Amino acid sequence: MAPADSPFQSPQQRSKARAAKREAVLRAAVQMFNERGFHQTSLDDVAASLGISKPTIYHYLGNKDQVLLECVTIGLSQLLEAAEESRRSAGNGAQRLIAFLTRYAQVNMDDFGRCVVRTGSEALGPESRAQFQALKRKIDTAMRELIEEGVADGSLAPTDTKLLGFALAGALNWPGRWHDPKGALQPAQIAEQLVAMLAQGFLPR
Amino acid sequence: MAPADSPFQSPQQRSKARAAKREAVLRAAVQMFNERGFHQTSLDDVAASLGISKPTIYHYLGNKDQVLLECVTIGLSQLLEAAEESRRSAGNGAQRLIAFLTRYAQVNMDDFGRCVVRTGSEALGPESRAQFQALKRKIDTAMRELIEEGVADGSLAPTDTKLLGFALAGALNWPGRWHDPKGALQPAQIAEQLVAMLAQGFLPR
Repeated sequence: MAPADSPFQSPQQRSKARAAKREAVLRAAVQMFNERGFHQTSLDDVAASLGISKPTIYHYLGNKDQVLLECVTIGLSQLLEAAEESRRSAGNGAQRLIAFLTRYAQVNMDDFGRCVVRTGSEALGPESRAQFQALKRKIDTAMRELIEEGVADGSLAPTDTKLLGFALAGALNWPGRWHDPKGALQPAQIAEQLVAMLAQGFLPR
Repeated sequence: MAPADSPFQSPQQRSKARAAKREAVLRAAVQMFNERGFHQTSLDDVAASLGISKPTIYHYLGNKDQVLLECVTIGLSQLLEAAEESRRSAGNGAQRLIAFLTRYAQVNMDDFGRCVVRTGSEALGPESRAQFQALKRKIDTAMRELIEEGVADGSLAPTDTKLLGFALAGALNWPGRWHDPKGALQPAQIAEQLVAMLAQGFLPR
C-alpha cells in the first residue's frame, strides 16, 4: 500500500475513487432524466452539470442507453432487496406483504426508483430492454409469491394473484410520477397511508 | 346541395370526409406511439402506414407535438365523459365511484387512454404540456369529488381524498402499460376485478 503522503494512489484508493466518480455521474444523470425526461436530456448536459466532459462519462459508464440501464438497474435492485428482506422477516403473509409494499412505495419516490417508474421499456435499446424487462419480471414474481404465501396462511383474502399484483404495483408505482420530492408529505408517510388504503379497501369495514 | 351523382362534394360531404381523414391519421398515430413509443415514432412512419405524405398530416393535424396533444386530449375527454356520466347516474356515492372507476380502467386499455398513461408531460412542448396537465387536473378533481360525495353519504370510509384518488388512479392507469390488447382477458373483466379489489382491500373482511 502507498504511504498516506504518497502522490500515487494505492489500488484500493483508485478503485474507491472510481466508484465515487461513477456514482456521482449516475446520480446527476438520474436526477436530470427524472426532471426533464430521458429524451430531453443529453449526456453533454449531465457532463456539464458535473464540470466534466462527455468522454469521461463514456469512460465510466458507456453511452446514454447504458447510463439509463444502470440507473433503472439500481432502482430495481433496491426493490428486489426489499422483497428479499420481507421474505426473511417475521409475521404472517399479510404482514410481510405490507412490509414489502411500504418499502416498495418508498423506493419509487427515491431517485432511482422514480427513474424505473418513468422509463417505458421502449426508451431502451433491444439488449438493455431485455435486461430491464427480466428484472421487472423478478419483482412481479416476488410480489406474487408474497401474495400467495398470505393467501396460503389465511392472512389475505383469496384472490387472482397476478391481477392483485398489478393493482398493487400500479397504485405504488404512481407516486414516482406525482410525488414532489420538495413537497410537504414525507415518502414514509405516503407509503404507509397508501398501503393501508389498499389493505383496507375504500368500502367501509 | 350537390346532387348525388355530382363529381363535386357538397360542403357536408367535404366536412365529413375531412373528419374521417383526421380520425384515420389520429388512430394510426396513437397506435404507433403506443407500440413503439412517442420518441421512436416519426410522422413519416405514420404517413407511410396510411400511404400518404407527411405534409398531409401537417395539413390535417399539425406537427408531431400537436398530433400527440390531440391523441391525449381524446383519451382525457373520454375519462371526463365517464366522470360526468357517473355523476348523473343513480345510486349512492360508492356506487357512482365504482361505476366511474370501472369505465376509467377500460378507457385506459383503449388506444387513446393508453396514450394518456404512456405519455409523460415532459414529452410535450411547453404550451401543449400546460393543456395536458390542465385536463389531467380536471380528471383528478372529478375523482376527488366522487370520493367526497361517497364519504359524505357514508357509503365510503372516511379517508384522505387526495391520496385515495392517487392510489385509485395509479392502480387503474397501470393496465394502460401492462394490458396486452391481444391477450385473453377482456378489458371489461379486468376493470371490474381491479375495482372490486380496490373496493374490498386485500385483507379478509
